[in-house]
Amino acid sequence: MRFDVLTLFPEMVEQFCDYSIMKRASEKGVFQLNVVNPRDYTLDKHKKVDDTPYGGGAGMVLMAQPYVDAYESIDLAENTVTVMMSPQGEPLTDNIVNELSKADQIVILCGHYEGFDERIRDIIKPHEISIGDFVLTGGELPALCLIDAVSRKLEGTLGKIESAEEDSFSNGLLEYPHYTKPREYRGLNVPDVLLNGNHKEINEFRYQESLKRTKERRPDLYEKYINTSCLNN
Amino acid sequence: MRFDVLTLFPEMVEQFCDYSIMKRASEKGVFQLNVVNPRDYTLDKHKKVDDTPYGGGAGMVLMAQPYVDAYESIDLAENTVTVMMSPQGEPLTDNIVNELSKADQIVILCGHYEGFDERIRDIIKPHEISIGDFVLTGGELPALCLIDAVSRKLEGTLGKIESAEEDSFSNGLLEYPHYTKPREYRGLNVPDVLLNGNHKEINEFRYQESLKRTKERRPDLYEKYINTSCLNN
Repeated sequence: MRFDVLTLFPEMVEQFCDYSIMKRASEKGVFQLNVVNPRDYTLDKHKKVDDTPYGGGAGMVLMAQPYVDAYESIDLAENTVTVMMSPQGEPLTDNIVNELSKADQIVILCGHYEGFDERIRDIIKPHEISIGDFVLTGGELPALCLIDAVSRKLEGTLGKIESAEEDSFSNGLLEYPHYTKPREYRGLNVPDVLLNGNHKEINEFRYQESLKRTKERRPDLYEKYINTSCLNN
Repeated sequence: MRFDVLTLFPEMVEQFCDYSIMKRASEKGVFQLNVVNPRDYTLDKHKKVDDTPYGGGAGMVLMAQPYVDAYESIDLAENTVTVMMSPQGEPLTDNIVNELSKADQIVILCGHYEGFDERIRDIIKPHEISIGDFVLTGGELPALCLIDAVSRKLEGTLGKIESAEEDSFSNGLLEYPHYTKPREYRGLNVPDVLLNGNHKEINEFRYQESLKRTKERRPDLYEKYINTSCLNN
């Protein structure tokens, strides 16, 4: 997998890959990260990337030319998905992450300030993705979330001791509670069932806890899960 | 506003505040960031913060003691909210961001690897918040999203040229399209209405575009908006 990220803050994106599982995955070659700065593609001697909005209003708007030229400088593979991080996009879900992880290359456009000149959308026609119904200063954090989530699905990112299969959403439910040593901490004990070594009982306990937690916290996911399960049986 | 972040990767969180609007806001004293590493609170000479899960399974579980002790080392203000970033939490929205921005202090617990020992939840009783239905390596990126989103709402973060009032979701709708110079780019023109200086027409055009975009892309938000508007009239 190759990620190409268009951003005015290249170090912000590059630094992230120096941590934890992302660092190991990039060192192992599971993915390559290429960062392109639209500021390097301005035709203006002041390297201006934004200007005031037509029609008035607060904020600066990112100009089309530097973004389109930066985008067109990237070598595209056959199986490439171009994504624009935007609060106006489709909300990111585990299913979309799974789909994206099948691509050979993901090009990610990060905005900043008030937003993109609409003609960037018209010309590049990206798949717009949102990480949630809230507003951030730029698309860099959302892009990093996307890179992290997709990378976890790629073979070689997670070692033997980790697993994406038991994560929240992988079966449509929230994850069950976890416990580790010690058996008692401040008077709180690990549930007995987790200590008896009976894997059938442990699995049943965890499944019931997942169901209960999902029903309590996310009735929307619970409904979906119940309806899908009925269809499958 | 003071943010206290519990994380095993302090630099990852600290570096973020060196960029863009966040940098300016922290330099201006709009918020203070304090990072606490649970690894500094281990009682074990190997500074071990995680162990294998009771009941078996992949992944390592974060031990209760280092997190609880690190949490208890923090001076809490009267008006403090404690948040745990977790895919099992309440989905973050602009409304929650607004509520959080009224606190004097937000303590944020970031997990990593498989997850928290359940007793961390039992003892600290945090407000669990999710940034979306997907799984990341750790809570650091979600914590940074929260810090960024909340900071934008604090007085002094955005300068005169920026504005949070016209952002997506601030009125329940997605944002209208933006245009900046030049008037024509690759044959694509800025809509005439934005050039005529008639602010009533410009506002009506933008409102209609917001409505249209929300209806097409996010029928869920559109329904909510229409229902709320009817109630208000």
